[in-house]
Order: sequence, then structure tokens, then C-alpha cells
Amino acid sequence: MSKTTPPPAEFEAEFINGLKTIFEEKIVFNQVLGLKITSLLPDRVAGRIDMKHQLVGHYSHNRVHGGVISACLDAMGGLACMAAIGARHMDEAPEQRLHRFAKLGTIDLRIDYLRPGISEYFDLHAEVMRLGSRVASTRMEFRGADGKLLSTGAGAYIVS
Amino acid sequence: MSKTTPPPAEFEAEFINGLKTIFEEKIVFNQVLGLKITSLLPDRVAGRIDMKHQLVGHYSHNRVHGGVISACLDAMGGLACMAAIGARHMDEAPEQRLHRFAKLGTIDLRIDYLRPGISEYFDLHAEVMRLGSRVASTRMEFRGADGKLLSTGAGAYIVS
Amino acid sequence: MSKTTPPPAEFEAEFINGLKTIFEEKIVFNQVLGLKITSLLPDRVAGRIDMKHQLVGHYSHNRVHGGVISACLDAMGGLACMAAIGARHMDEAPEQRLHRFAKLGTIDLRIDYLRPGISEYFDLHAEVMRLGSRVASTRMEFRGADGKLLSTGAGAYIVS
Amino acid sequence: MSKTTPPPAEFEAEFINGLKTIFEEKIVFNQVLGLKITSLLPDRVAGRIDMKHQLVGHYSHNRVHGGVISACLDAMGGLACMAAIGARHMDEAPEQRLHRFAKLGTIDLRIDYLRPGISEYFDLHAEVMRLGSRVASTRMEFRGADGKLLSTGAGAYIVS
Repeated sequence: MSKTTPPPAEFEAEFINGLKTIFEEKIVFNQVLGLKITSLLPDRVAGRIDMKHQLVGHYSHNRVHGGVISACLDAMGGLACMAAIGARHMDEAPEQRLHRFAKLGTIDLRIDYLRPGISEYFDLHAEVMRLGSRVASTRMEFRGADGKLLSTGAGAYIVS
Repeated sequence: MSKTTPPPAEFEAEFINGLKTIFEEKIVFNQVLGLKITSLLPDRVAGRIDMKHQLVGHYSHNRVHGGVISACLDAMGGLACMAAIGARHMDEAPEQRLHRFAKLGTIDLRIDYLRPGISEYFDLHAEVMRLGSRVASTRMEFRGADGKLLSTGAGAYIVS
Repeated sequence: MSKTTPPPAEFEAEFINGLKTIFEEKIVFNQVLGLKITSLLPDRVAGRIDMKHQLVGHYSHNRVHGGVISACLDAMGGLACMAAIGARHMDEAPEQRLHRFAKLGTIDLRIDYLRPGISEYFDLHAEVMRLGSRVASTRMEFRGADGKLLSTGAGAYIVS
Repeated sequence: MSKTTPPPAEFEAEFINGLKTIFEEKIVFNQVLGLKITSLLPDRVAGRIDMKHQLVGHYSHNRVHGGVISACLDAMGGLACMAAIGARHMDEAPEQRLHRFAKLGTIDLRIDYLRPGISEYFDLHAEVMRLGSRVASTRMEFRGADGKLLSTGAGAYIVS
């Protein structure tokens, strides 16, 4: 990066609110999952989902479906990319930066299921390991209410 | 495998119906996805989901959410394991074989997103590459209504 | 692709020989592995390695090291990309097309180890599932002399 | 784990030396890579390789081959499993614990290539995210001499 403007310590409310609207409402399936952004920093993002009947994957243990985990971690990895891209383009107006979200796409995703997903709610974390001009690599975590690491993820995303 | 009973050409109706009930109803999140079994053979399984508003991931293109793809392919890989396990234990009563589903768990999952998921419905395919005594490896495909390959997946599952 | 030239049925000797020299000699570690190209078609490529003492991973079984498998499949996935890129740019001179190899890079790789790698030699196959303008996705296979599938791979590559 | 003996703070010299002999010498391909153990603790392990001509992957940049990275990270993930298994069985004699290495096998591996592997030497790190009775999940890192993160890995291993 030949950029001379340093990454911002934090984002403007307009950018954060815009990103929340896209992420929590316009991406309809995130709404089905009940996925909420809890923290949005240039270098890491966090989110949360509450456990509910709809998300059950294992009928006898009230365990969250593995697909809920993969869906949430894919979404969080994308959000981390969006934060990193946003931080790189602070010279653009918030609205212009938000348009960049539409161009983001997952190339591939890996999820490791470590422990059964049983909890009242789950905390999700994602960070960008490297943001290139074409591809970004991310790491994600899915934790129980007690902080225990339940699943981890890694993803590659097309950025532009 | 020291088993002498050959794998069956097809399953009994009782086993198929039992598996459908578990997969399409008891696994609640599969119901949210609208995931249906269309074929259940010992060596390969197929399913389908219809596109609907709830599954949208990209607001401006009516594209299916990447998490829907990962969730469906995880579920289909597990179903393929269940069919392979079922075929290995034809000496057990159908009900007994169905109990084995409860012990199945995904170890890890990889999804490659090849093309945008835009279609009226999607056809899903899964097969077991190797069924060991402790771990099974699967390959999955996510195709559009025109048969075009949109995403591929690979998974490892704990079996017992 | 808006290209009107159809993909070629096969490549010119100059391109094939140039690619062999790069792949089998200039990429020094491929030489350490003993990796040879056995077939180079626009839509799929094949290679072979002979088992030798240097490649042993499991001292008590004379089994090939898992890292040999991952290294070979990474290399073969890259070769498949190169063939696909070569086929897309048949309007360029062979030498010019060969320069494109230098820009290729692996984004990520997944290997599934299905069965112990014990064989006199191994046959490797790779094909491009999708070639985009920036990213290519590939699938690879690692087979024993008897044709048995021992490992599978999937990779994402930066192309340009 | 119903084990009452706590994990040891560190291993006995006999166990460490035995593991070094297996890892650095008996696994012949590790010797080709020049892979050395630099730290062996119950909860994390570290290693190093020196850059050398044999390991070149990109002829024009003296870059390490992606397959060297995947091979080293696969080996390091296995070593981390072995350390975790060793710590779980401190009631056994060192020699008996070392026999457990022979039963270890990689189920699958994912490598993310973040930055070009150009350095005089590389430092490798691995830790076990979860050690189950049948499967262990690991995370690995491949860093340059300046500490920069060049590649990351995740693996699943059969343990017993």
C-alpha cells in the first residue's frame, strides 16, 4: 500500500449505521440468522446471534446447526473485509465506501467444528489477515456465552 | 471392511422415510432452508432447495446467501455419510440404523464458491469419498436449475 | 468471457516444452519431488511422481509424506490454471503465454487425505473448475499405481 | 477427560530427544525440508527451516515453494498433536508415548498463502485447538525471519 493516510482509529457513525443496515437488514438471510454487529473496528469486527428454535441442527441436544455456524462465519469474514476496505478508503465519502460492499464476494471458506454449539447466545469474531488489491484472507471465531471457542473459520474474499 | 453382506442396491421405505423425517423436519434449520431429499442411494444422495426471499444474501442481485450454500452442503455431506453408514449396517433394523444419525458430527468443511448463486431452485449432490471406522470424507456440489455447477464442497465427518 | 477464439484442442510443442522446462526444472522443489508432466490439455493436466526414499513420511510403513501430496497437488493445480490461461490467450505467441506463469500464485489450498499413500508411483490429475479474470478454482487428485484415489485437493489461485 | 494428573509444565529430555529423532530424521522428507524443532511444549510447538536452493518455487524471485509451506505446516500440526497427546499420557513411559506418533494421521489440511515466502529462514508455530479422543484440530503459522506472518494453516488429525 502506498497510501499515506493512516488507518482510522474508528469509523464515522454514518458509515457504521450504513453498514449495519446492509448487514442486518438488506442481507435477508442474516436477518433469518438474527445476526447483529456488536463491534466494528478497522482491524476487527464482532457480532452476536441468540440461540432460537429455528437454528437447531441436532434435535436431541438443542445444538445449533453447523450451517448456522458456517453462514455466520462467512458473513463475519465478509464484514471484516468491508471494515478493512472502508479503512483503506477514508478519503471517500461514507456512502461511496458502502457501495464497495456490493462488490465483495467469498471465494472459499473453511470451518473447523471444535465443540458442540450449545449456548444461549454466540459471539462471533473476525479479522483480516491480509488485504490485497484483489483478494483478502480472514480468520473467524465462533464462541459460546462463556467465551469457549466452539468453531473457527478461514476465508478468502474477492475485493476490488 | 470385513463385512460379507454386499451394499444394498437400495434402501427400504421405512429407512428412507425415517431419514426424511429426521432430515427435513427434526433438523429445524434444514426446514428453514427448505431442504428436501430427492434421492437417497447407498453411494450418493441428492437434494433440492427452492429460492425464496428469506435466503437472499446479495440485496441487489437476488443472489442466494453463501451461508445457505455452506449450510446445505454441510447437511448433504452428513446425509451422504448417513446413507453410507446405513448401507454398511443392513443387518440392523431400520430404526436402529437411524439412531446412528444422532452420533454423526461435522469435523470440518470447505466450500468453493465458483459462480453467483442465482436460480429458481438449486440441486445438491453429495457422495462419500471414503468411509472409515471413525472418519468419513465427502464431496458435495451445488448446481443451478440449468445444471451449472455453482459451488463445490468437501467435508470430514465423525462417524461411529 | 467475450473471447471469440474457441479453446484449442491441444497446445503447440513450443508451449508444452516451455511449460515442462519451467515446471520440471526451474521450479527447483518440483525437481526434488521428481514431479513430471504426463499430459497437458487445455481443460485438464496430469503428472506423475515415483516413490523414493527421500519422500518417506512414515518411517515404519514406507508411506509418502503428506507434505509431498500437498506440494504435488498445489503444483498440479497451478499447472491446470496455466493450461487454462494458455488456452484463453492462444492469440499470443507461446513465449508470451509462458510469461503468464510467473504471475500465478496460490491463494489457498485444501487437501483431504483419504488412504495411506503407499505405491511405486503416483498419478496426479488437476482441472480448473472455474477460470475468472482474477481467480481460478481447481480440483486435484492423487492416485496410486492401481488407480485408487488416495487424496483429493482443491485450490484457489490468483491469475492475471 | 477424566484424567486427574494435570498437564506437565514441560517434557522430560528423553521424550523430547526421542521426538526430535523421529521428526527430524526418521521422517525422511522432513530432513529434505531441513525441518528442525525449536520448541516443544505441551500446548504449542515451534520449528524452523533455512531457505536453500532446493526449496525454490518461483524461479525469478527465489521464493519458497508453496508445497514447502504446506509440507512444513502439515508436519508441525502433527507435532503439536503429538505434544498434546504426550501431555495427556504422562503416566506412560516416554518410549511408550513416542509409539503413539506412529498412529497419528492427517485427515485434512488447509493452507492460506498470505504473502510471498521470501526470507533467509522461516519460523513455524503450531497449536492444538482441541484434542478429542479420536480427532484433533490444529492451527499453524509460517513466519519470515522478521516475524511477518506469511502463511497460516489449519488441520484435522486422527489420534488414538
